[in-house]
Amino acid sequence: MSELKLHILGCYSATPRAFTNPTAQVLEIKGHLFLIDCGEGTQVQLRKQKIKFSRIKHIFISHLHGDHFFGLPGLLSTFRLLGRDAPMHVYGPKGIKEAVVTMLRVGHAWTNYPLIFHELTAMESEIIFEDEKVEVHTIPLTHRVYTNGFLFKEKEGDRKLDINAVLNYNIDKCYYQNIKKGKDVVLENGEIIPNNLLTNDPLPPKSYAFCSDTSYNETIIPIIENANALYHESTFLEPHEKLAKQTGHSTALQAASIASKAKVKNLILGHYSTRYNNIQVFKEEAEQLFKHVELAEDGKAFTF
Amino acid sequence: MSELKLHILGCYSATPRAFTNPTAQVLEIKGHLFLIDCGEGTQVQLRKQKIKFSRIKHIFISHLHGDHFFGLPGLLSTFRLLGRDAPMHVYGPKGIKEAVVTMLRVGHAWTNYPLIFHELTAMESEIIFEDEKVEVHTIPLTHRVYTNGFLFKEKEGDRKLDINAVLNYNIDKCYYQNIKKGKDVVLENGEIIPNNLLTNDPLPPKSYAFCSDTSYNETIIPIIENANALYHESTFLEPHEKLAKQTGHSTALQAASIASKAKVKNLILGHYSTRYNNIQVFKEEAEQLFKHVELAEDGKAFTF
Repeated sequence: MSELKLHILGCYSATPRAFTNPTAQVLEIKGHLFLIDCGEGTQVQLRKQKIKFSRIKHIFISHLHGDHFFGLPGLLSTFRLLGRDAPMHVYGPKGIKEAVVTMLRVGHAWTNYPLIFHELTAMESEIIFEDEKVEVHTIPLTHRVYTNGFLFKEKEGDRKLDINAVLNYNIDKCYYQNIKKGKDVVLENGEIIPNNLLTNDPLPPKSYAFCSDTSYNETIIPIIENANALYHESTFLEPHEKLAKQTGHSTALQAASIASKAKVKNLILGHYSTRYNNIQVFKEEAEQLFKHVELAEDGKAFTF
Repeated sequence: MSELKLHILGCYSATPRAFTNPTAQVLEIKGHLFLIDCGEGTQVQLRKQKIKFSRIKHIFISHLHGDHFFGLPGLLSTFRLLGRDAPMHVYGPKGIKEAVVTMLRVGHAWTNYPLIFHELTAMESEIIFEDEKVEVHTIPLTHRVYTNGFLFKEKEGDRKLDINAVLNYNIDKCYYQNIKKGKDVVLENGEIIPNNLLTNDPLPPKSYAFCSDTSYNETIIPIIENANALYHESTFLEPHEKLAKQTGHSTALQAASIASKAKVKNLILGHYSTRYNNIQVFKEEAEQLFKHVELAEDGKAFTF
């Protein structure tokens, strides 16, 4: 059965500190390792989590605040030092190419592998990556600067072959591929066996929505609806709701409200302001509105 | 008595790893806290060593390789988030301003404190900072790119008043300041008391030479001569002497040879290649030529 695995490399806001890291995550989905955001120190966190650098081929950057992308020049140089030759795709707001390329050029660290930037400017959700198994959609967020969250979505898989049924009808193996794609079978005697007698529904495709940083914004609900997991920032708690609004952030309760309205299966909180000593309180606040709340923590992994 | 204190924040070459950091040091000298090089993660190391961010007013960058300056944009943004308003001076090779300013601009992190770049291009040693107590000289190094080491040097202090002598001659206190500056005293009867009867030599001024990265280069010897401590890179050991030369680096033995010829008091080794598991071997190799060898280690401090 297909599983999504999310590695939290860093989930605190503003600045790296002695024992907390700015935003970065790795999502394992259908054989891909997608790096999401890349605050300073992300490469160290990748090493600590023993994530193989060479398996990362796509990096998604939500917005151009330092705590979400200042780790990029260092990581891209390290790829070069490790002898990478596979292409690397970087998706992020317009400007990311100029910043990263300038650092690499001035730092004599221009890559010897193809480094391809996909600069984002759209204000509506769009598909920015797609292959036969996965789609990545942007989730336009409301922050102080142009920001996108990302929806990572498995595609509908093949139908499941009902092996007893196909053996019963004595159907040749060479038809199996077509049956899985939903086709009916015509037997030699001309009889048509409808596909629904030969197959079962595939597993429902899974999805993961990453939303950091954003103020409370209900327009994202239709995009993230029914996601298996939603990472929604909760920089603040309710007593700082006004500050959240001013700075383009959310409270834990607001994150829970979005999770509830979007009927997601799990809510993962993160991007905590470093003003709070105890993150447990974020969970308690969110649980007032939504049942399945998890706390992101640096080094933690979630499977769903 | 005046002491120099050197905090090693990172002393490994190439890339940050799970438990080692790229080059960064803080030198305490005559009330200054000078930050020397700033690899990725330096701000985290500063926090771990409990070094007060606000006391840093001058940053010296040896060269524009990522492991020596990729921590700069993050550190400078953090200064801003901490509400800094004191000016910050950054000394480093031409190009550093473009790279850092581009990252800060694209990252919406332009500073609200004065950020002053002093871009270096000279091929000869020059004084790049000076006040009444300290001078900083560049040490032109030989690396793959334009690189300077830095010599941090106390200025000659005032002469020490011989309090018994001045009391003996019944000299008024108002002359003390001039006597400390080396002036003779004319008594009321016209008699001249030469300064050397009233004072003793001041403590010899101390100095610290930072030399990373460089291949073996004897032209630096006159600049660093007699330094109290020399940090000299030893990326490699003698079996890799050829590789050292090719990559613009030194071996531990070569570092010891420079230390010995420059008659410095202490040699501190660092910038170890991450290919070696045991840094003790660097000390053993260097001790073949020089007695006072210390190993830099992340988090270690030296007083001299």
